[in-house]
Amino acid sequence: MDHFALYADLHALLGESGLLTDPQVVAAHNTDWRGRYRGTAPWVVQPTSTAQVMEVIKACAKAGVPLVPQGGNTSQCGAATPRSGHPEIILSLSRMNRILELDAENATLVCEAGAILAQVQKHAEAAGFLFPLSLASEGSAQIGGVISTNAGGTAVLRYGNMRAQVLGLEVVLADGRCWNGLKGLRKDNTGYDLKQCFIGAEGTLGIITRAVLRLYPLPRQRVTAWLSVPSPTLAVRLLRFLRAQCGDRISAFELVSHSALSLVLHHLPQFQPPLDPLPAWSVLVELEEFDAQAPLQGLLEKALVLALEERLLDNAVLAQSLTEAQALWALREQISEAQKREGISIKHDISVPVSRIPEFIELAGKNLETAFPGIRVVCFGHVGDGNLHYNLSFANPERNRTLVPQTPAVNRIVHDVVSALNGSISAEHGIGQLKVQELVHYKDPVALDLMKKLKMLLDPQGLLNPGKILA
Amino acid sequence: MDHFALYADLHALLGESGLLTDPQVVAAHNTDWRGRYRGTAPWVVQPTSTAQVMEVIKACAKAGVPLVPQGGNTSQCGAATPRSGHPEIILSLSRMNRILELDAENATLVCEAGAILAQVQKHAEAAGFLFPLSLASEGSAQIGGVISTNAGGTAVLRYGNMRAQVLGLEVVLADGRCWNGLKGLRKDNTGYDLKQCFIGAEGTLGIITRAVLRLYPLPRQRVTAWLSVPSPTLAVRLLRFLRAQCGDRISAFELVSHSALSLVLHHLPQFQPPLDPLPAWSVLVELEEFDAQAPLQGLLEKALVLALEERLLDNAVLAQSLTEAQALWALREQISEAQKREGISIKHDISVPVSRIPEFIELAGKNLETAFPGIRVVCFGHVGDGNLHYNLSFANPERNRTLVPQTPAVNRIVHDVVSALNGSISAEHGIGQLKVQELVHYKDPVALDLMKKLKMLLDPQGLLNPGKILA
Repeated sequence: MDHFALYADLHALLGESGLLTDPQVVAAHNTDWRGRYRGTAPWVVQPTSTAQVMEVIKACAKAGVPLVPQGGNTSQCGAATPRSGHPEIILSLSRMNRILELDAENATLVCEAGAILAQVQKHAEAAGFLFPLSLASEGSAQIGGVISTNAGGTAVLRYGNMRAQVLGLEVVLADGRCWNGLKGLRKDNTGYDLKQCFIGAEGTLGIITRAVLRLYPLPRQRVTAWLSVPSPTLAVRLLRFLRAQCGDRISAFELVSHSALSLVLHHLPQFQPPLDPLPAWSVLVELEEFDAQAPLQGLLEKALVLALEERLLDNAVLAQSLTEAQALWALREQISEAQKREGISIKHDISVPVSRIPEFIELAGKNLETAFPGIRVVCFGHVGDGNLHYNLSFANPERNRTLVPQTPAVNRIVHDVVSALNGSISAEHGIGQLKVQELVHYKDPVALDLMKKLKMLLDPQGLLNPGKILA
Repeated sequence: MDHFALYADLHALLGESGLLTDPQVVAAHNTDWRGRYRGTAPWVVQPTSTAQVMEVIKACAKAGVPLVPQGGNTSQCGAATPRSGHPEIILSLSRMNRILELDAENATLVCEAGAILAQVQKHAEAAGFLFPLSLASEGSAQIGGVISTNAGGTAVLRYGNMRAQVLGLEVVLADGRCWNGLKGLRKDNTGYDLKQCFIGAEGTLGIITRAVLRLYPLPRQRVTAWLSVPSPTLAVRLLRFLRAQCGDRISAFELVSHSALSLVLHHLPQFQPPLDPLPAWSVLVELEEFDAQAPLQGLLEKALVLALEERLLDNAVLAQSLTEAQALWALREQISEAQKREGISIKHDISVPVSRIPEFIELAGKNLETAFPGIRVVCFGHVGDGNLHYNLSFANPERNRTLVPQTPAVNRIVHDVVSALNGSISAEHGIGQLKVQELVHYKDPVALDLMKKLKMLLDPQGLLNPGKILA
């Protein structure tokens, strides 16, 4: 690339503050948060307006240099990290972080792409609303990235994923034009719903610059319980049973394997076992209620007693205070930390129809045990969404070291089962760089062809986040 | 077109029963249900399988003859009717009407495109589930058409429109290939979400042949009330107030103008005024509850008393039985019938942000009164979605006849206000043939350009429902 001409163009457009060149600063942007990917972008551009984003894209198009849009840099799949050895520029949205409007009567919020998810949540709550999307990285994840990943998290069961929260978008296209779809409408059937193309596209089809998001009434009560269930089969039946009893008050239904819970209790001794004996399988269930006076705890207790009679569960404990509820949630949320302390593991983010979760767990477990006798499965996740985090390791550290080079073989076994059950090899984390080859292996060829054509249509020059999603 | 060769091909593919040629039968398919559009398709093809749809498309592609997909033929905009004077064939999905699967633990239903909406609702209910999408034509509307229109209806406030109900699709493309996206997953981030392209595309980008739909728990209680509110401004404030009190239990919030209610009471004397005096503005509100024991009526009563104290409403009546609830709903649902009996009117299906509903009503009313003094506005609709049906006529039949030729001028006034308020000229009915020119006038040029490019990408030969949405 013609470094000098492009540098001059970008400098003229953005000035010193909008063009980061300090090698240490740039290096941080070139590395994903897990340290798994390292790009070689020479600079980071930080525009402050949609107009600047348009000009940056035009300058890069002229120079033939691709852009890698980056929000909070919290991708699990290297989606926001440039590729090593490719001449690419990082486009950071961090300075476009304003919340522009909260319309209480329309229950919508308008913000720039760089607004941080936790700030959006807080802004909504201060006005008496809930912005429901919630995930571990919400303190750094930016709205543009959350939309581009179609992020999931812990509230999907009740509120849907990020796609369901987006009413309107403003997007800068690869040709430098801006598509203004920034409408706060619940209903709009004036032709193709273009915003859907950009949601979950990981920045490969356009640069999201602004969004209109849906807000919800703020729940006035929550009740949280930890349940012991005999098997995944009964966990799935229990979900159906509780839904029929409590409706969509159920806001979380998280499955936790014995192995996952044991790791937490082993590595984080400040936590207490929620039930005695330690459940073979646990479910963390949470209900929400908008009416402050409604007997929410009574409703859950009644439903659990009926479920106990139906032998859908063995035992249950209800949190009696916010502190107790937080302690139960911590057991779920600390699984990742406990796994990290235990050592490396091979991770998967899969989904299948909820009804097939038990089959997945049984089949994948059996096939892995055959190929890797004694392998340890740490399995947990959003069963209500059919989404499991399914992680594999050996308890013995030495033996575990021999497993890591076998990652492709392990992936093949797990993803073959997912595929046979009509599931997804990436439920909520996206494809990024990590799963590009797995996608080629498993995706319907017609779908892959349509995806490539859509990419060619919207980004014929390959300027936007090349090498992500599609090879 | 080479009639003979194409006829021979289609006959060989489908046999007598799959190729309708009886002029009377074909004429019915050539006419929309309102009798506003008449096509000149010589035949109707009625395949019974996806494989047959693929072959039909290939035969038509070879002959260069476009196809008009048709479901229940209930479009409000002529979307499923061939154009007059164009050589087109009607592709009826009516024989592909099977419900293929109901997965209770995944809360999903799989059906063919020709399944009738009311049958899907009944099938779900028999299994203890709710399929929430509900609209006036549900006894004939077919799922493929409902998806292709991204239909709305009366339950959008709580459950979203049809797009929100679709988890997976099978679509036959213009090149005769089949894209199999028939997955029942709540989470799937493996690249671009292709199904979104076909939802709301009115059959112009592909032929939907099967769908996976979401099901919901069946509500155990409903409570319905008719409210008198002083103004649209207070109606919108009341909605926000009730949402904060009752959460998303609110499943309907319908505004009815004095003129609309008066027409019903005048033309359908079997109905009683819900309140005395007759409200300047009415709201029909309904709440749903999953717990059979919860004091739902008490919750609404309490909220309405508080709203009365806040002067957000003047008066209210709660239905004390299912019969009373049905009587209140009938007042809302008979508005269209009453209008029909009153005479012709110029209709609009618009949306704006909910917060701007009062502004829309005031501004549009003022501008129309200036241009057409004495004009009568009949205004009602799904205010919770920002969606109004806004219909114009003169009470005097003779004067009314002079209004009809002024339709373009009336549309311009109404749609200019919609546009100024960042709204939509088609909230739930789509574009079809009716609003193609209005779309060109009001749609963002970048959006129109992208839409045309998407059409070119997926249907370069213009085989699928030409002249609909895009000119």
